[in-house]
Amino acid sequence: MRAALDAAAAAAAAGEVPVGAVVIRDGAVIATAANAPRRLHDPTAHAEMLAIRAAAAMLGRERLEDCDLWVTLEPCAMCAGAIAHARIARLYYGAADSKGGAVEHGPRFFAQPTCHHRPEVFAGIGDREAGELLRDFFAARR
Amino acid sequence: MRAALDAAAAAAAAGEVPVGAVVIRDGAVIATAANAPRRLHDPTAHAEMLAIRAAAAMLGRERLEDCDLWVTLEPCAMCAGAIAHARIARLYYGAADSKGGAVEHGPRFFAQPTCHHRPEVFAGIGDREAGELLRDFFAARR
Repeated sequence: MRAALDAAAAAAAAGEVPVGAVVIRDGAVIATAANAPRRLHDPTAHAEMLAIRAAAAMLGRERLEDCDLWVTLEPCAMCAGAIAHARIARLYYGAADSKGGAVEHGPRFFAQPTCHHRPEVFAGIGDREAGELLRDFFAARR
Repeated sequence: MRAALDAAAAAAAAGEVPVGAVVIRDGAVIATAANAPRRLHDPTAHAEMLAIRAAAAMLGRERLEDCDLWVTLEPCAMCAGAIAHARIARLYYGAADSKGGAVEHGPRFFAQPTCHHRPEVFAGIGDREAGELLRDFFAARR
Protein backbone atom coordinates (compact mmCIF):
# COMPACT_ATOMS: atom_id res chain seq x y z
CA MET A 1 0.00 0.00 0.00
CA ARG A 2 3.02 2.27 0.47
CA ALA A 3 3.59 2.43 -3.29
CA ALA A 4 -0.12 3.13 -3.92
CA LEU A 5 -0.11 5.95 -1.33
CA ASP A 6 2.99 7.46 -2.93
CA ALA A 7 1.25 7.35 -6.34
CA ALA A 8 -1.78 9.07 -4.78
CA ALA A 9 0.44 11.85 -3.39
CA ALA A 10 1.98 12.26 -6.86
CA ALA A 11 -1.52 12.58 -8.36
CA ALA A 12 -2.33 15.38 -5.90
CA ALA A 13 0.88 17.20 -6.81
CA ALA A 14 -0.23 17.01 -10.47
CA GLY A 15 -3.64 18.50 -9.65
CA GLU A 16 -5.52 15.21 -9.92
CA VAL A 17 -7.75 13.68 -7.24
CA PRO A 18 -5.20 11.72 -5.15
CA VAL A 19 -5.78 8.03 -5.73
CA GLY A 20 -3.03 5.51 -6.42
CA ALA A 21 -3.03 1.84 -7.35
CA VAL A 22 -0.57 -1.02 -7.66
CA VAL A 23 -0.81 -4.49 -9.20
CA ILE A 24 1.16 -7.23 -7.42
CA ARG A 25 2.11 -10.64 -8.87
CA ASP A 26 4.23 -13.22 -7.05
CA GLY A 27 5.00 -10.63 -4.37
CA ALA A 28 6.38 -8.10 -6.85
CA VAL A 29 4.91 -4.80 -8.08
CA ILE A 30 4.25 -5.15 -11.83
CA ALA A 31 2.29 -1.91 -12.35
CA THR A 32 1.84 1.36 -10.45
CA ALA A 33 -0.52 4.15 -11.49
CA ALA A 34 -1.91 7.45 -10.29
CA ASN A 35 -5.33 8.86 -11.09
CA ALA A 36 -4.93 11.00 -14.26
CA PRO A 37 -8.19 11.79 -16.13
CA ARG A 38 -7.38 15.49 -16.49
CA ARG A 39 -3.82 15.08 -17.67
CA LEU A 40 -4.69 12.26 -20.09
CA HIS A 41 -8.00 13.75 -21.30
CA ASP A 42 -9.50 10.36 -20.47
CA PRO A 43 -12.57 10.00 -18.20
CA THR A 44 -11.68 6.32 -17.66
CA ALA A 45 -8.14 7.05 -16.40
CA HIS A 46 -8.65 6.13 -12.76
CA ALA A 47 -5.61 4.69 -10.99
CA GLU A 48 -7.08 1.16 -10.92
CA MET A 49 -7.85 1.20 -14.66
CA LEU A 50 -4.37 2.41 -15.58
CA ALA A 51 -2.69 -0.13 -13.29
CA ILE A 52 -4.82 -3.02 -14.59
CA ARG A 53 -4.23 -2.02 -18.21
CA ALA A 54 -0.48 -1.68 -17.67
CA ALA A 55 -0.26 -5.07 -15.93
CA ALA A 56 -2.28 -6.83 -18.66
CA ALA A 57 -0.18 -5.21 -21.39
CA MET A 58 3.01 -6.25 -19.61
CA LEU A 59 1.85 -9.85 -19.23
CA GLY A 60 0.40 -9.93 -22.76
CA ARG A 61 -2.99 -11.25 -21.70
CA GLU A 62 -6.41 -9.93 -20.76
CA ARG A 63 -6.77 -11.73 -17.43
CA LEU A 64 -4.90 -11.16 -14.18
CA GLU A 65 -6.17 -14.11 -12.13
CA ASP A 66 -2.77 -14.46 -10.44
CA CYS A 67 -2.59 -10.77 -9.48
CA ASP A 68 -3.74 -8.61 -6.58
CA LEU A 69 -4.76 -4.95 -6.75
CA TRP A 70 -3.98 -2.44 -4.02
CA VAL A 71 -5.72 0.94 -4.26
CA THR A 72 -5.97 3.85 -1.83
CA LEU A 73 -9.74 4.43 -2.28
CA GLU A 74 -12.80 2.18 -2.54
CA PRO A 75 -13.25 1.48 -6.27
CA CYS A 76 -16.16 3.04 -8.21
CA ALA A 77 -18.53 0.99 -10.41
CA MET A 78 -16.30 1.39 -13.47
CA CYS A 79 -13.22 0.15 -11.63
CA ALA A 80 -15.07 -2.63 -9.79
CA GLY A 81 -16.33 -3.83 -13.18
CA ALA A 82 -12.79 -3.75 -14.58
CA ILE A 83 -11.49 -5.69 -11.55
CA ALA A 84 -14.09 -8.40 -12.26
CA HIS A 85 -13.30 -8.46 -16.01
CA ALA A 86 -9.59 -8.79 -15.20
CA ARG A 87 -10.28 -11.61 -12.71
CA ILE A 88 -8.13 -9.93 -10.04
CA ALA A 89 -7.62 -12.42 -7.17
CA ARG A 90 -7.53 -10.06 -4.19
CA LEU A 91 -8.55 -6.43 -3.78
CA TYR A 92 -7.02 -4.37 -0.97
CA TYR A 93 -8.28 -0.83 -0.57
CA GLY A 94 -7.79 2.09 1.77
CA ALA A 95 -10.44 4.75 2.42
CA ALA A 96 -14.15 3.99 2.01
CA ASP A 97 -15.95 6.25 -0.52
CA SER A 98 -19.57 6.80 0.47
CA LYS A 99 -20.19 9.05 -2.55
CA GLY A 100 -18.73 7.10 -5.46
CA GLY A 101 -17.67 3.74 -4.04
CA ALA A 102 -19.27 0.62 -5.50
CA VAL A 103 -17.89 -2.12 -3.23
CA GLU A 104 -19.47 -1.34 0.15
CA HIS A 105 -21.64 1.53 -1.15
CA GLY A 106 -24.11 2.20 -3.97
CA PRO A 107 -24.33 -0.72 -6.40
CA ARG A 108 -22.20 -3.01 -4.14
CA PHE A 109 -21.08 -4.54 -7.40
CA PHE A 110 -19.35 -7.69 -6.12
CA ALA A 111 -22.51 -8.66 -4.19
CA GLN A 112 -24.69 -8.51 -7.33
CA PRO A 113 -25.89 -11.88 -8.64
CA THR A 114 -24.82 -10.76 -12.15
CA CYS A 115 -21.21 -10.20 -11.03
CA HIS A 116 -19.20 -12.92 -12.81
CA HIS A 117 -16.05 -12.69 -10.66
CA ARG A 118 -15.60 -11.62 -7.05
CA PRO A 119 -12.11 -10.96 -5.73
CA GLU A 120 -11.36 -11.46 -2.06
CA VAL A 121 -11.80 -7.98 -0.58
CA PHE A 122 -9.77 -6.41 2.25
CA ALA A 123 -10.85 -2.86 3.16
CA GLY A 124 -9.45 -0.10 5.35
CA ILE A 125 -5.75 -0.69 4.72
CA GLY A 126 -3.87 2.61 5.07
CA ASP A 127 -7.25 4.33 5.12
CA ARG A 128 -6.14 7.13 7.47
CA GLU A 129 -3.35 8.34 5.20
CA ALA A 130 -5.42 7.74 2.04
CA GLY A 131 -8.32 9.74 3.49
CA GLU A 132 -6.05 12.57 4.63
CA LEU A 133 -4.59 12.92 1.14
CA LEU A 134 -8.13 13.29 -0.26
CA ARG A 135 -9.32 15.70 2.46
CA ASP A 136 -6.23 17.91 2.10
CA PHE A 137 -6.65 17.95 -1.67
CA PHE A 138 -10.29 19.03 -1.60
CA ALA A 139 -9.73 21.47 1.30
CA ALA A 140 -7.01 23.24 -0.72
CA ARG A 141 -9.43 23.66 -3.67
CA ARG A 142 -12.21 25.28 -1.67
CA MET B 1 -26.59 2.48 -34.89
CA ARG B 2 -25.59 1.21 -38.36
CA ALA B 3 -21.95 2.14 -37.72
CA ALA B 4 -22.02 0.48 -34.28
CA LEU B 5 -23.51 -2.72 -35.77
CA ASP B 6 -20.83 -2.75 -38.48
CA ALA B 7 -18.14 -2.39 -35.77
CA ALA B 8 -19.74 -5.29 -33.87
CA ALA B 9 -19.61 -7.47 -37.01
CA ALA B 10 -15.94 -6.55 -37.43
CA ALA B 11 -15.28 -7.61 -33.82
CA ALA B 12 -16.85 -11.02 -34.51
CA ALA B 13 -14.68 -11.45 -37.60
CA ALA B 14 -11.64 -10.76 -35.39
CA GLY B 15 -12.72 -13.41 -32.84
CA GLU B 16 -13.96 -10.90 -30.27
CA VAL B 17 -17.43 -10.85 -28.71
CA PRO B 18 -19.36 -8.73 -31.24
CA VAL B 19 -20.15 -5.39 -29.65
CA GLY B 20 -19.66 -2.05 -31.38
CA ALA B 21 -19.98 1.56 -30.21
CA VAL B 22 -20.02 5.03 -31.70
CA VAL B 23 -19.77 8.51 -30.18
CA ILE B 24 -21.81 11.23 -31.90
CA ARG B 25 -21.33 15.00 -31.51
CA ASP B 26 -23.31 17.62 -33.42
CA GLY B 27 -24.78 14.86 -35.59
CA ALA B 28 -21.37 13.55 -36.67
CA VAL B 29 -19.55 10.36 -35.73
CA ILE B 30 -16.37 11.34 -33.85
CA ALA B 31 -15.32 7.86 -32.64
CA THR B 32 -16.14 4.27 -33.59
CA ALA B 33 -14.86 1.21 -31.76
CA ALA B 34 -15.23 -2.55 -31.64
CA ASN B 35 -14.85 -4.75 -28.57
CA ALA B 36 -11.17 -5.84 -28.44
CA PRO B 37 -9.96 -7.15 -25.05
CA ARG B 38 -8.25 -10.21 -26.55
CA ARG B 39 -6.47 -8.42 -29.36
CA LEU B 40 -5.36 -5.54 -27.13
CA HIS B 41 -4.55 -7.67 -24.05
CA ASP B 42 -6.74 -5.23 -22.13
CA PRO B 43 -9.66 -6.40 -19.95
CA THR B 44 -11.10 -2.88 -20.07
CA ALA B 45 -11.20 -2.71 -23.89
CA HIS B 46 -14.97 -2.87 -24.34
CA ALA B 47 -16.34 -1.03 -27.37
CA GLU B 48 -17.87 1.73 -25.21
CA MET B 49 -14.60 2.33 -23.33
CA LEU B 50 -12.54 2.56 -26.52
CA ALA B 51 -15.07 4.88 -28.19
CA ILE B 52 -15.30 7.17 -25.13
CA ARG B 53 -11.51 7.29 -24.76
CA ALA B 54 -11.02 8.03 -28.46
CA ALA B 55 -13.64 10.80 -28.41
CA ALA B 56 -12.16 12.42 -25.28
CA ALA B 57 -8.64 12.24 -26.72
CA MET B 58 -9.84 13.79 -29.98
CA LEU B 59 -11.61 16.63 -28.18
CA GLY B 60 -8.73 17.08 -25.70
CA ARG B 61 -10.92 16.97 -22.62
CA GLU B 62 -12.18 14.46 -20.08
CA ARG B 63 -15.90 15.21 -20.36
CA LEU B 64 -18.26 14.53 -23.26
CA GLU B 65 -21.38 16.34 -22.05
CA ASP B 66 -22.24 17.34 -25.63
CA CYS B 67 -21.91 13.79 -26.97
CA ASP B 68 -24.17 10.75 -27.34
CA LEU B 69 -23.09 7.11 -27.20
CA TRP B 70 -24.61 4.40 -29.38
CA VAL B 71 -23.73 0.81 -28.50
CA THR B 72 -25.10 -2.52 -29.73
CA LEU B 73 -25.39 -4.13 -26.26
CA GLU B 74 -26.58 -2.99 -22.84
CA PRO B 75 -23.48 -1.59 -21.08
CA CYS B 76 -21.89 -3.49 -18.17
CA ALA B 77 -21.06 -1.85 -14.81
CA MET B 78 -17.61 -0.79 -16.00
CA CYS B 79 -18.97 0.89 -19.10
CA ALA B 80 -21.97 2.42 -17.32
CA GLY B 81 -19.53 3.93 -14.82
CA ALA B 82 -17.39 5.31 -17.64
CA ILE B 83 -20.49 6.79 -19.33
CA ALA B 84 -21.30 8.61 -16.08
CA HIS B 85 -17.70 9.80 -15.60
CA ALA B 86 -17.68 11.10 -19.20
CA ARG B 87 -21.03 12.89 -18.68
CA ILE B 88 -22.44 11.38 -21.89
CA ALA B 89 -25.73 13.17 -22.68
CA ARG B 90 -27.71 10.32 -24.27
CA LEU B 91 -27.16 6.56 -24.32
CA TYR B 92 -28.73 4.50 -27.10
CA TYR B 93 -28.28 0.76 -26.88
CA GLY B 94 -29.40 -2.35 -28.77
CA ALA B 95 -29.76 -5.76 -27.17
CA ALA B 96 -30.49 -6.15 -23.45
CA ASP B 97 -27.88 -8.20 -21.53
CA SER B 98 -29.47 -10.10 -18.65
CA LYS B 99 -26.10 -11.64 -17.66
CA GLY B 100 -23.72 -8.69 -17.63
CA GLY B 101 -25.85 -5.60 -18.25
CA ALA B 102 -25.88 -2.90 -15.58
CA VAL B 103 -28.50 -0.49 -16.92
CA GLU B 104 -31.73 -2.49 -16.72
CA HIS B 105 -30.13 -5.51 -14.99
CA GLY B 106 -27.91 -6.25 -11.99
CA PRO B 107 -26.65 -3.06 -10.33
CA ARG B 108 -28.98 -0.81 -12.46
CA PHE B 109 -26.21 1.71 -12.11
CA PHE B 110 -27.96 4.85 -13.35
CA ALA B 111 -30.78 4.28 -10.83
CA GLN B 112 -28.36 4.20 -7.86
CA PRO B 113 -28.50 7.22 -5.53
CA THR B 114 -24.68 7.36 -5.68
CA CYS B 115 -24.68 7.72 -9.49
CA HIS B 116 -23.43 11.27 -10.13
CA HIS B 117 -24.61 11.56 -13.77
CA ARG B 118 -27.48 9.86 -15.56
CA PRO B 119 -27.65 10.06 -19.34
CA GLU B 120 -31.01 9.90 -21.09
CA VAL B 121 -31.37 6.21 -21.99
CA PHE B 122 -32.98 4.74 -25.11
CA ALA B 123 -32.96 0.92 -25.23
CA GLY B 124 -33.77 -1.69 -27.86
CA ILE B 125 -32.50 0.17 -30.94
CA GLY B 126 -31.35 -2.35 -33.55
CA ASP B 127 -31.63 -5.02 -30.87
CA ARG B 128 -32.64 -7.80 -33.29
CA GLU B 129 -29.52 -7.50 -35.42
CA ALA B 130 -27.29 -6.85 -32.37
CA GLY B 131 -28.66 -9.94 -30.63
CA GLU B 132 -28.29 -12.09 -33.76
CA LEU B 133 -24.61 -11.14 -34.07
CA LEU B 134 -24.04 -12.26 -30.47
CA ARG B 135 -26.05 -15.49 -30.79
CA ASP B 136 -24.31 -16.46 -34.05
CA PHE B 137 -20.92 -15.74 -32.48
CA PHE B 138 -21.49 -17.89 -29.41
CA ALA B 139 -23.26 -20.67 -31.40
CA ALA B 140 -20.20 -20.94 -33.68
CA ARG B 141 -17.93 -21.41 -30.64
CA ARG B 142 -19.91 -24.23 -29.06
